[in-house]
Amino acid sequence: MMIDLFSDTQTRPTPGMREAMARAEVGDEQSGSDPTTNALCERVAALLGLEDGVFMPSGTMCNLVSILVQTRAGDEIIVDDQSHIYNTEAAGAAAIGGVSVRALPTRVGLYTLAQAEGAIRVPQRTAPRSALISIEQTTSFSGGTVWDLGTMRAIRDLAHAHGLKAHIDGARLLNAVVATGIPADAYAAGFDSAWIDLSKGLGCPVGAVLCGSRDFVTEAWRWKYRLGGALRQSGVLAAAGLYALDHHMDQLAEDNANARRLHAAIADAPGLAFDETAGQSNILCFSVAGLGVTASAFAAACLAEEVRVRAIGEEMIRATASLEVDRAGIARAGEVIRAVADDLAARR
Amino acid sequence: MMIDLFSDTQTRPTPGMREAMARAEVGDEQSGSDPTTNALCERVAALLGLEDGVFMPSGTMCNLVSILVQTRAGDEIIVDDQSHIYNTEAAGAAAIGGVSVRALPTRVGLYTLAQAEGAIRVPQRTAPRSALISIEQTTSFSGGTVWDLGTMRAIRDLAHAHGLKAHIDGARLLNAVVATGIPADAYAAGFDSAWIDLSKGLGCPVGAVLCGSRDFVTEAWRWKYRLGGALRQSGVLAAAGLYALDHHMDQLAEDNANARRLHAAIADAPGLAFDETAGQSNILCFSVAGLGVTASAFAAACLAEEVRVRAIGEEMIRATASLEVDRAGIARAGEVIRAVADDLAARR
Amino acid sequence: MMIDLFSDTQTRPTPGMREAMARAEVGDEQSGSDPTTNALCERVAALLGLEDGVFMPSGTMCNLVSILVQTRAGDEIIVDDQSHIYNTEAAGAAAIGGVSVRALPTRVGLYTLAQAEGAIRVPQRTAPRSALISIEQTTSFSGGTVWDLGTMRAIRDLAHAHGLKAHIDGARLLNAVVATGIPADAYAAGFDSAWIDLSKGLGCPVGAVLCGSRDFVTEAWRWKYRLGGALRQSGVLAAAGLYALDHHMDQLAEDNANARRLHAAIADAPGLAFDETAGQSNILCFSVAGLGVTASAFAAACLAEEVRVRAIGEEMIRATASLEVDRAGIARAGEVIRAVADDLAARR
Amino acid sequence: MMIDLFSDTQTRPTPGMREAMARAEVGDEQSGSDPTTNALCERVAALLGLEDGVFMPSGTMCNLVSILVQTRAGDEIIVDDQSHIYNTEAAGAAAIGGVSVRALPTRVGLYTLAQAEGAIRVPQRTAPRSALISIEQTTSFSGGTVWDLGTMRAIRDLAHAHGLKAHIDGARLLNAVVATGIPADAYAAGFDSAWIDLSKGLGCPVGAVLCGSRDFVTEAWRWKYRLGGALRQSGVLAAAGLYALDHHMDQLAEDNANARRLHAAIADAPGLAFDETAGQSNILCFSVAGLGVTASAFAAACLAEEVRVRAIGEEMIRATASLEVDRAGIARAGEVIRAVADDLAARR
Repeated sequence: MMIDLFSDTQTRPTPGMREAMARAEVGDEQSGSDPTTNALCERVAALLGLEDGVFMPSGTMCNLVSILVQTRAGDEIIVDDQSHIYNTEAAGAAAIGGVSVRALPTRVGLYTLAQAEGAIRVPQRTAPRSALISIEQTTSFSGGTVWDLGTMRAIRDLAHAHGLKAHIDGARLLNAVVATGIPADAYAAGFDSAWIDLSKGLGCPVGAVLCGSRDFVTEAWRWKYRLGGALRQSGVLAAAGLYALDHHMDQLAEDNANARRLHAAIADAPGLAFDETAGQSNILCFSVAGLGVTASAFAAACLAEEVRVRAIGEEMIRATASLEVDRAGIARAGEVIRAVADDLAARR
Repeated sequence: MMIDLFSDTQTRPTPGMREAMARAEVGDEQSGSDPTTNALCERVAALLGLEDGVFMPSGTMCNLVSILVQTRAGDEIIVDDQSHIYNTEAAGAAAIGGVSVRALPTRVGLYTLAQAEGAIRVPQRTAPRSALISIEQTTSFSGGTVWDLGTMRAIRDLAHAHGLKAHIDGARLLNAVVATGIPADAYAAGFDSAWIDLSKGLGCPVGAVLCGSRDFVTEAWRWKYRLGGALRQSGVLAAAGLYALDHHMDQLAEDNANARRLHAAIADAPGLAFDETAGQSNILCFSVAGLGVTASAFAAACLAEEVRVRAIGEEMIRATASLEVDRAGIARAGEVIRAVADDLAARR
Repeated sequence: MMIDLFSDTQTRPTPGMREAMARAEVGDEQSGSDPTTNALCERVAALLGLEDGVFMPSGTMCNLVSILVQTRAGDEIIVDDQSHIYNTEAAGAAAIGGVSVRALPTRVGLYTLAQAEGAIRVPQRTAPRSALISIEQTTSFSGGTVWDLGTMRAIRDLAHAHGLKAHIDGARLLNAVVATGIPADAYAAGFDSAWIDLSKGLGCPVGAVLCGSRDFVTEAWRWKYRLGGALRQSGVLAAAGLYALDHHMDQLAEDNANARRLHAAIADAPGLAFDETAGQSNILCFSVAGLGVTASAFAAACLAEEVRVRAIGEEMIRATASLEVDRAGIARAGEVIRAVADDLAARR
Repeated sequence: MMIDLFSDTQTRPTPGMREAMARAEVGDEQSGSDPTTNALCERVAALLGLEDGVFMPSGTMCNLVSILVQTRAGDEIIVDDQSHIYNTEAAGAAAIGGVSVRALPTRVGLYTLAQAEGAIRVPQRTAPRSALISIEQTTSFSGGTVWDLGTMRAIRDLAHAHGLKAHIDGARLLNAVVATGIPADAYAAGFDSAWIDLSKGLGCPVGAVLCGSRDFVTEAWRWKYRLGGALRQSGVLAAAGLYALDHHMDQLAEDNANARRLHAAIADAPGLAFDETAGQSNILCFSVAGLGVTASAFAAACLAEEVRVRAIGEEMIRATASLEVDRAGIARAGEVIRAVADDLAARR
């Protein structure tokens, strides 16, 4: 049977979650009368300590709408060069919002306060207008690295001092919360927009919740509608979110632990290189350049042994723990990855 | 208990549908591995006689993506002045696609071949480029009027002769199908894009399926992703769609019959004016201008008697039959509407 | 020798104007140090009674920038269906600003206060947001009709009452001024943006001046720069504008008179139909439908006799008086047009 | 009297140029009947060895239109991080074209073939589509560095191999031509779009000429019109361009020589740091960080001695030679800059 470490987006609803969905009380979310969706939005807003929330079909729409509401055409936003916004949103910010993306060079998705400061443009009519800065907590393509709270706050304050909005792409914010013990509202405090994904480690089939001030959410709704993201009886999906917040938070801690276990199992395999930050949450990234093969070739070799990992670019492998793989599966994945590395190293 | 004729978007999933959703086999739709979503898309594509299909979170996203794929910035599209695209999509075509909307003046949403021909711009660099023409079958805000097949084909051929794409907004195409006995693939034949909504008369909580050529769907996926409409385990929603196509088609016929019954019940009420096309499918529109009140006031008077109808503009009332209201409810709604009209007429 | 009534855009600089250009004192307009451009902008702002002005390469850029500054993506603007913005700006408002254009049906480019009121959308998140209303004084494609001052003011006030901006496309505003004796600042008073063209009846080779509040002009400069309309030593062009305001205002009155003379000369020619408003300024439009020929064919017949007029659509002819054609030329044009009409009528 | 080294955009028309403008034969460029503009476009197209050309109000519009014609919303273009497109076009590519800009980190505006290759995205629907690569010859904000012909060709071929368009921002291409003796058509050969500016070293008041294939120019005209860049009797400006190509090419060589002279004069001034590439054409950049002052402070000190240079960012000074400053002025500027440096160094 396949051990799927491709991504935590592959998680399927559990039986309990399915039952909660089937029993969900529903209404029309567009008229504000879906009680389950309303309850979920209130719950996530409270979790993040922000005023209000809106249910979204995807995390991509959360990022996109946050940008659309808080910028206008000709603005520039600042992100890290590994970020989902820069690499994996099909240039939506530019295509839809007319907004340019300034990507700061980083090793594992963490930029410094000095980098942020240097990237804010001096206001003049010939230059793009710096309008928003985004932090991805945890970093998705860089190994689930956890941003330091102090740095986040310093960047947030820098942004505000220069008239920029501060945004958190919180696709895996809750993995950081269980990793550090710092509550979500401590991370999100003072940010203008922040969201969490339901369809990653939390295991829901569809959805994310975007939060901010009441005015922000009003405008976010306008864009959600315009983009075609306004649903009808979304309570069937929101019920899964409420269930996950009640029952799957421990799973996130287990996912983080599984990534650490996998790290321990392969840390000294020949030819694999790990960043010093590796294993902070549920994603484990390593380079296979030392083996003289491409990441795709390495992933294919694992797949032949029924372990599915993801090639990121030419040389990085990403393995992500989730409820789809239990501790035994992690152990088996560790053996396979080590064996593949051993084999390739022997052939060099 | 409220008799809800506000819209067929208010339909809630039936127990059978909920059970189908709870049992749905799921995967990641973005990697093409959600079997239920795949089955639904194939089924709807076959129903429309088009090559391929893609699941969408809403009908609004179906229209938007059809425009985005088939135009580019600076183009103009042609629609009727009562259409959803023109009035109720928050100017998405312009905001996101840079496309201008040319709205042809109509009485009940039906424009003529001559109007269409007159609206196609002579190609020149100073003018917008005419790029796409859309037909809304049935008309949403004009009383569910059914487009004549011959006119649709003539407009489609005109479009193609001038290099425009031809699109069907089929939010209620299936209501036309059950009303006329003309199959969906006869309506959609030769059109470049067409879609049906699942969350209206069919009773699903969320979703629509957009169809066209394989190349069209490839590009539609790109935009769906960019807009944030790419989901994960969408099979939980697609299962509702498959269930509805199996079990709710008869309901659409009943909805159409209920609108006719309501029409018969109030046709001679004092001060109500109906278009000659009234009662062709599941929507019934009438003017209350003859009663000297606004549509909002009339709707409020009905609501006080637990009949919910929708005010459209200053003087039109729209009542929509759906699975939320059975034959007895329709009879009761007829009595209430007639009584409100009688009462208002008496006071004049 | 060709008598060119195609458009007043064909006007070439006079010797005096060329000399003024050759002597112009110049600097870099982008740094605000071109004294001639500065003088022109101040002069036109004073003429229109508005706070500030900016030199633009074209009237099209004036309209575009006015829209870009005063709307945002997803907004809707209201114009007449004969307007330059709707027909002859290559859908720039949508393509660049994401703004939809709502074109009111008119006979000669004049819409009513009631039409304007009916076109302003009720604010709701599903609808486009009505943001700006535009009046084209005089109407370009409808025969140079002059808007009534009272109507303009009523529309302006309606706009403001609903939170819309009010804009004047003043490509030929000065023709209205000399026709009515009402000063330009009376027309422009209270409008948020207004402009005059230099390269039409005024005879300059290039340019227009857009005016509004100081804040408006600051933002207009930002868009002018972004669009690539920021020039360098624009004083060479601005000098022509100053010269024209000093020396060509009488010419505009003569142009208006010439259009009236032409009207008188052909008013009773067989098969030509004039609107009751014909001959109000320097443009004369008439239908040739009564002759059973297309406008193109009629224009070609005139061209064979060295009189150049413009076909507008299938049946309208537009003849425009300017400094390129003197009184004798107008007399000759009248003879030719009448002879062509006589000839075509005789053949029917 | 001020010695103005701020930019070669400050150049004012010479008496001979003014006379040529005053005598220019003109027509309406929009109908293709301005003979002087036509002659200029043909001349520049021949100079660059490309099929056709179009006159533009500015170099910024040349870059913008090249992007608009050769990309669509959601695409990404590749430039250097010092480039005009990235820093000084007010995010026009994103704002107007929906295109994201990927800026490669460079020292003096020159990126490598390997960097270009690494920046081209693997095609997938979640990523921006790499669509165009741009080379700025010479580099504007990095000291007028000249791109090596072989590298340009290798990047051009790489672009084409991956389906990208290759573009030259040739604002100062002619300075490279006179510096290297390589003709302009050798640089532009095989590129899809390229342009030269008239209003920099060539000394014209307004304008640039954008060239490419005939189809490219047809589409460029569409965008030029939509942006508001279509002029009328542009021959008055084009005449300046023709005059400059006849009489000012030697001046470009003199400008390059003057920059070298200035370099020689201040190369060993205390605290000034020059890149090894300094002095290749008419722009000279140097860092003043070694003096412990900001670039703005250094520029202010020079200005007090009537030498105007430009601060670029925190620590760089840019001095640009042009026809506004003769050899004696350069000598004087050298003395002033050296004296300012001496003075500041003494105070440390």
